[in-house]
Amino acid sequence: MNDRWALGRRVLAEALGTGLLVTVVVGSGIAAAKLSPGDTGLQLLENSFATALGLAVLILMLGPVSGAHFNPVVSAVDCWLGQRNGGGLTVRDLIAYVPAQILGAIAGAVLANVMFGEAAVSWSATQRSAGHLWMGESVATAGLILLIFSLARSGRSAAAPVAVGAYIGSAYWFTSSTSFANPAVTVGRAFSDTFAGIAPGSVPAFVVFQVAGAIVGTLLLVVLYPVVAESADEVVVPHPEAGVGS
Amino acid sequence: MNDRWALGRRVLAEALGTGLLVTVVVGSGIAAAKLSPGDTGLQLLENSFATALGLAVLILMLGPVSGAHFNPVVSAVDCWLGQRNGGGLTVRDLIAYVPAQILGAIAGAVLANVMFGEAAVSWSATQRSAGHLWMGESVATAGLILLIFSLARSGRSAAAPVAVGAYIGSAYWFTSSTSFANPAVTVGRAFSDTFAGIAPGSVPAFVVFQVAGAIVGTLLLVVLYPVVAESADEVVVPHPEAGVGS
Amino acid sequence: MNDRWALGRRVLAEALGTGLLVTVVVGSGIAAAKLSPGDTGLQLLENSFATALGLAVLILMLGPVSGAHFNPVVSAVDCWLGQRNGGGLTVRDLIAYVPAQILGAIAGAVLANVMFGEAAVSWSATQRSAGHLWMGESVATAGLILLIFSLARSGRSAAAPVAVGAYIGSAYWFTSSTSFANPAVTVGRAFSDTFAGIAPGSVPAFVVFQVAGAIVGTLLLVVLYPVVAESADEVVVPHPEAGVGS
Amino acid sequence: MNDRWALGRRVLAEALGTGLLVTVVVGSGIAAAKLSPGDTGLQLLENSFATALGLAVLILMLGPVSGAHFNPVVSAVDCWLGQRNGGGLTVRDLIAYVPAQILGAIAGAVLANVMFGEAAVSWSATQRSAGHLWMGESVATAGLILLIFSLARSGRSAAAPVAVGAYIGSAYWFTSSTSFANPAVTVGRAFSDTFAGIAPGSVPAFVVFQVAGAIVGTLLLVVLYPVVAESADEVVVPHPEAGVGS
Repeated sequence: MNDRWALGRRVLAEALGTGLLVTVVVGSGIAAAKLSPGDTGLQLLENSFATALGLAVLILMLGPVSGAHFNPVVSAVDCWLGQRNGGGLTVRDLIAYVPAQILGAIAGAVLANVMFGEAAVSWSATQRSAGHLWMGESVATAGLILLIFSLARSGRSAAAPVAVGAYIGSAYWFTSSTSFANPAVTVGRAFSDTFAGIAPGSVPAFVVFQVAGAIVGTLLLVVLYPVVAESADEVVVPHPEAGVGS
Repeated sequence: MNDRWALGRRVLAEALGTGLLVTVVVGSGIAAAKLSPGDTGLQLLENSFATALGLAVLILMLGPVSGAHFNPVVSAVDCWLGQRNGGGLTVRDLIAYVPAQILGAIAGAVLANVMFGEAAVSWSATQRSAGHLWMGESVATAGLILLIFSLARSGRSAAAPVAVGAYIGSAYWFTSSTSFANPAVTVGRAFSDTFAGIAPGSVPAFVVFQVAGAIVGTLLLVVLYPVVAESADEVVVPHPEAGVGS
Repeated sequence: MNDRWALGRRVLAEALGTGLLVTVVVGSGIAAAKLSPGDTGLQLLENSFATALGLAVLILMLGPVSGAHFNPVVSAVDCWLGQRNGGGLTVRDLIAYVPAQILGAIAGAVLANVMFGEAAVSWSATQRSAGHLWMGESVATAGLILLIFSLARSGRSAAAPVAVGAYIGSAYWFTSSTSFANPAVTVGRAFSDTFAGIAPGSVPAFVVFQVAGAIVGTLLLVVLYPVVAESADEVVVPHPEAGVGS
Repeated sequence: MNDRWALGRRVLAEALGTGLLVTVVVGSGIAAAKLSPGDTGLQLLENSFATALGLAVLILMLGPVSGAHFNPVVSAVDCWLGQRNGGGLTVRDLIAYVPAQILGAIAGAVLANVMFGEAAVSWSATQRSAGHLWMGESVATAGLILLIFSLARSGRSAAAPVAVGAYIGSAYWFTSSTSFANPAVTVGRAFSDTFAGIAPGSVPAFVVFQVAGAIVGTLLLVVLYPVVAESADEVVVPHPEAGVGS
């Protein structure tokens, strides 16, 4: 199968996976807000329960095709580490992945809106703009990056689907910003004026602090896991010749 | 052991498993509605918690016997893919599985009703009939099909019990229809006028959109996983000579 | 190490494990009832969350020592199946296990009472006596037996800790009786007049219907898994010479 | 790589992991108390959900570097058992680990405070001082020690991340003290006058009863698992030459 088809398939997987992730986040947020109007914490518990399970499943489902990044900062770090150690996304891959993730995320928000009988697009009016929230995003993203690449460097990426789902489910609670930790998902969430939304004007700063967190996470990784184990996984970038879906 | 016995055992497993799945869904719905009368979201959280765990356990328990489909569209897709790639249910198997699943589902609803001291059968009065709910069913079923057969095609069906349980637990929340995603279970739920019920008149359209979703999911599968890995599982159809329970 | 020590160690593990299981059930019930006074369903959600996790952990912790039955009907079925197929508890083992489980369960209830500042013993006043509740106990126990021995017969007992925890967490909801499914635990719960308690007068009928359910579960097992796989586990009875803890 | 760097890396991992554990505990406690003001039980459910998932993830993330003890009594027992059986922390390691855990825990509380827009330090005013709470701490710590070292002695430490997370998630409910079970985390929690806090004056007695519980847990371990299996893990202390991160 030629390489162009293989990349197309991977890009489709990234768009589909990021889209469905936003559908999970936004859709379960809409359901929670409608069904539990009296307690915001209960809404977040329902939202985090659905997201933890749904994210784990999506990574499991699409990991063999594209690596199941669903997140531009994960793809960027993978590419950057790969330049140094071999493996990882190529720059060409990265340029293909990121727009697919963003467009997928937007489509996923629209799908959630329509599926719940809302207008296809409604700009979120939820301002999320304060120093302590930005700090939350940096902490959330640093932890996410350290987790994903710790598992890869120690040959345990088979645990990544459950681990990443559990991490986000927990980080909804232990960070002040409810852990967006993903620039593509952040953009997608701006398209829904519902529980999980974020006002478009709050998006840029969130993305900036997510990138900062990703840098911190990568530095911690390099200090804590300086050597790539021989058994390390390249699961984050399936090889065209070896990958099941390529 | 001859083949007739083996098929009988598999059909029994499908009837029992689908039945207990409906008992889990309907029974936990009755308990939730009785015990948490003040908040519908909390009821759904309880219902989805019980269903995610219970479904995973049932697949684990009966998978080696029958493949633990518990769902006519899963069986149909398995049969259709098997015609093209080898493996999979035969048409004769399919014709045996589907009625067992439907009859099991009805019996499971009756069991839940009786076990909770309700009338054995009470037709549900819950209308579930609207375009956005049908869309929810298509999304839910497409995702379910893509998940199950992605795992099979990449040799990871050992993860299916937990993954399918987690998927349904999440989809209760992120789809507008609370993710029935199963024609047999949909029929069964019509027999209980309780939390998880569906009015008989709403059943046919739900099934139509579930089938449509199954087709979408199958197309996505073929695009994303065009090649069946050498290590792919046929776990969805245990061979009579090799299967533990046949 | 001689056999007497080995049996003593196994009996201690059964007493300790059954005791801590009752501590988990009763203790988390006390906490839930105190902290969430307004919604019985929320109390049961908290109780089932704690029990599902705690039971899984206890089986994982003590499985290599004694098989982690913590339940007289599990031990009895194991013994009975072993008579027919080899392996399994001996009658002498069974006679040692059951009193240890019952005494452990009582001690576990006392521990929970004392740890939460209640009287060491207070007979439960919660009547649980009705046909549909007894039916719930039979369903719950049949499913438990079928699950445990399905996993053993198909060589997948490594999944038992999580599977049994998940099963009970789900069965708290989908059975009308909240799934005691264990004669020793039923006796223990009579010693605490709190959320998870059962009036002493309701205990005998519960035990009778648990035994009936165990028989149904065993019959289903023999029909569905007639052949013991070559890779079947004897994990339910560690051999003295091979077991880690014996 | 020389040994000094290796120890530095392990100490950093212990400080970071213990710190993030306290951030998870305190941060999710702050979020829960703010978002679910009407029901303390719901707050604890949210707090225990976040802690169970977060703790499992942290152990998975940092286990290969330092063993992911994050707890002085775990490190001390590991050292003590190692003196008898070989393996385990050296005394020098122990002396390096414990201060790192304590300082990390304090930093983690400060991080949670700041991330949620609170004062960096506010001494907790929550008195936790009563015999039945102390008993809760001893029970919680005994169970934790028995669990961790049971898994290690039977060669199943790969299950430790999920098992320890599940144990603590359950023990929040089944112990009267909500299971601190960790002297470093106890100290850290004193620095935040929020849901998960503990008044400084209540800390010493909690630590004393945690140590007592650790001794009980160790004695139970030695009785139940007298022989270290040949397949036993030394995962609690990665060897400098073999460990991925050292």
